[in-house]
Amino acid sequence: MRIALLGCGVVGAEVVRLLHSHRDELAARVGEPLDLAGIAVRRPGRSRDLPVDPALFTDDAAALAARADIDIVIEVVGGIEPTREWLLTALAGGRSVVTANKALLAVHGSALAAAAAEAGVDLYYEASVAGAIPLLRPLRESLAGDSVRRVLGIVNGTTNFVLTRMDETGASFTEALDEATDLGYAEADPTADIDGFDAAAKAAIIASLAFHSRVVMDDVYREGITAVTAADIASARAMGCVVKPLAIAERSATSAGVSVRVHPAMIPRSHPLAGVREAFNAVFVEAEAAGQLMFYGRGAGGAPTASAVLGDLVAAARNRRAGRRGPGESVHADLAVLPMGDTVTRYHINLDVTDKAGVLAAVAGAFARHDVSIQSVRQDGRGDDASLVLVSHAATDAALTATVDDLRALDVVRAVAGVMRVEGGEA
Amino acid sequence: MRIALLGCGVVGAEVVRLLHSHRDELAARVGEPLDLAGIAVRRPGRSRDLPVDPALFTDDAAALAARADIDIVIEVVGGIEPTREWLLTALAGGRSVVTANKALLAVHGSALAAAAAEAGVDLYYEASVAGAIPLLRPLRESLAGDSVRRVLGIVNGTTNFVLTRMDETGASFTEALDEATDLGYAEADPTADIDGFDAAAKAAIIASLAFHSRVVMDDVYREGITAVTAADIASARAMGCVVKPLAIAERSATSAGVSVRVHPAMIPRSHPLAGVREAFNAVFVEAEAAGQLMFYGRGAGGAPTASAVLGDLVAAARNRRAGRRGPGESVHADLAVLPMGDTVTRYHINLDVTDKAGVLAAVAGAFARHDVSIQSVRQDGRGDDASLVLVSHAATDAALTATVDDLRALDVVRAVAGVMRVEGGEA
Repeated sequence: MRIALLGCGVVGAEVVRLLHSHRDELAARVGEPLDLAGIAVRRPGRSRDLPVDPALFTDDAAALAARADIDIVIEVVGGIEPTREWLLTALAGGRSVVTANKALLAVHGSALAAAAAEAGVDLYYEASVAGAIPLLRPLRESLAGDSVRRVLGIVNGTTNFVLTRMDETGASFTEALDEATDLGYAEADPTADIDGFDAAAKAAIIASLAFHSRVVMDDVYREGITAVTAADIASARAMGCVVKPLAIAERSATSAGVSVRVHPAMIPRSHPLAGVREAFNAVFVEAEAAGQLMFYGRGAGGAPTASAVLGDLVAAARNRRAGRRGPGESVHADLAVLPMGDTVTRYHINLDVTDKAGVLAAVAGAFARHDVSIQSVRQDGRGDDASLVLVSHAATDAALTATVDDLRALDVVRAVAGVMRVEGGEA
Repeated sequence: MRIALLGCGVVGAEVVRLLHSHRDELAARVGEPLDLAGIAVRRPGRSRDLPVDPALFTDDAAALAARADIDIVIEVVGGIEPTREWLLTALAGGRSVVTANKALLAVHGSALAAAAAEAGVDLYYEASVAGAIPLLRPLRESLAGDSVRRVLGIVNGTTNFVLTRMDETGASFTEALDEATDLGYAEADPTADIDGFDAAAKAAIIASLAFHSRVVMDDVYREGITAVTAADIASARAMGCVVKPLAIAERSATSAGVSVRVHPAMIPRSHPLAGVREAFNAVFVEAEAAGQLMFYGRGAGGAPTASAVLGDLVAAARNRRAGRRGPGESVHADLAVLPMGDTVTRYHINLDVTDKAGVLAAVAGAFARHDVSIQSVRQDGRGDDASLVLVSHAATDAALTATVDDLRALDVVRAVAGVMRVEGGEA
């Protein structure tokens, strides 16, 4: 079985090491050896401390992906172009593909899956979501006889680290992000993480598999964590909650649609996701028959990601050896993605108010005008420091947004100090 | 695709309901409808509130398992005989088998796997361990390119419920077991659960898959939870631990063997398994490249178990439709199971001692004679109530047992009040 590796950064190097150190074990599991037949990198001449023949390196990824002697192409380069073309070429030529490229899958997953089906080969991408955590295979196969209602995931380690630190040490967003950068949990340019782009790509992939529908990156509503304040964290704590960076894919209870979104949210401290700390990832699945499931582990890093790549590689190699392909994509449900305004959610709203009679009546009136009912209200402080903390019952995001707009316009409301969604309750 | 169902108790009835309510969805996922073609029960004439033709019921399970028109046999009867014969007949006749029967697999898994391989059909049993939690497929497939070092599982809901209650409410073992019985978490005869037989069967199945070796029920060292006292729970709490009912499968660091065992143990409260409460199950996996993973969910109950059965059914049906079988058993590593005495572990030991000079010297001497080093020691109380709490460093179980025997014989030791293993530390 001849393998081509596109990319040899942190993950690729670990794939090379595992293929070498586990060579006999892998051969036993597949039924024949897995031979690395070429590695595409930008600078083939660069010296690398890897247990591999230097002659395997090439800078021509396109040619390697198209080589007739290759059985399986592993892609860990990232990016959309020209990676998309390389993989389409590989698939069209009858090669199976294993990739960790969430951005590519979240945009062009449909075209890649179609090319794999057409050629009768596998397209596997367990490593693209939540690193080493086996999640996509369970969603695709183990829950194939069940109905997923909702998936709540902590799928970005950087933002989970930042919010964990803000919660546990009282650090500000900036301080926590600086610490994440120092520890290597955040990149020099953290935009993709803290603005939710990374999580949105993963949410699209999860939603597609969980709901047998095609969800792409642009369908995903996205809010980052930059606006989360120490006051939000304290407010969450006061109501027995913790703020977590969530990717949510949820079947609508009222229409044939799904809501797919990425935003920080308060969840109860008793929720299994609440204990997922630092840079760990976890995905919580609610299914009709199975009930509550959670998958936990390292979401990033060379070795964890390489473990997921190798798992896919073994599956693709076994299938190939048996002259077949694994279960392909399934989009038969074809559910529509709801606009964010139609999504049903709950809001936690923190208001700075004037301390005089009639405040609560005015505030409650704004909720009533949009048919949003109030689950709890708490007044903190007095005089100039008076604040009102409200938690709504479930309502559409549009109604909740309109309520907040009305609150802003009230004379008795000096400022809307914080608005955050509340998740993790009963569906 | 024609399905035979052997057994129609709590799980079987739920399988019938899901096959009915998800008929279109399942057909879409498989590519053709899944038709229930026969249901074997003890009393076919009994009235059942199930969406199925009463004519499908039969009391002849052997004949149903052997019927030529059946493609896949689902077995949820349980027990060793005659179930083993029915399944061997089904497999030999070219039918795939989906079973939830842990006891059968833990004893005759090898023969069943051989029969499936011989006939070129699937033998799936995700439902046999940890109910709805997708665990066996990830172990078998997702981690196929990695090396599992250790698996720590809470795989029995009854014992986890009992120990959770003892920890959280201070209940005695008997009180907690009574509550579990009242709530339906414990059976009228709870022996299989509280004495660890149920967990031992699951440990054998997990160890076989995790280490690509053949481990059977009799290989598994087993201690129940009946000896766990309120004092043990309090002692665990005092050192920041919680007592959990663990199934452990661990590769030896020093020899080509595995240790497979079931016993209560103290684990740190910061360990992800510590938060797994009540009747929930979870399995914590440590793999070389993937690092720490955890799988969490409901380990029992009709619907969760049926979800796992349906997942296997869809996989077997897809394979069959494609004229192939999934990845079979892999026992190429063929690791030996270590005797418990050779297993490396840590002990927490609680001694009632006389309160006089030289006690610690005498106690420490017993440890030293067996080359066991002490990690921590704490003296509680004075006079007649003096107790010494010791935690060892890692040592062989044989050395630790011999140490405890020596301690019992010391004049200064009035009683060995508690001995419990400590798990969940660094490997």
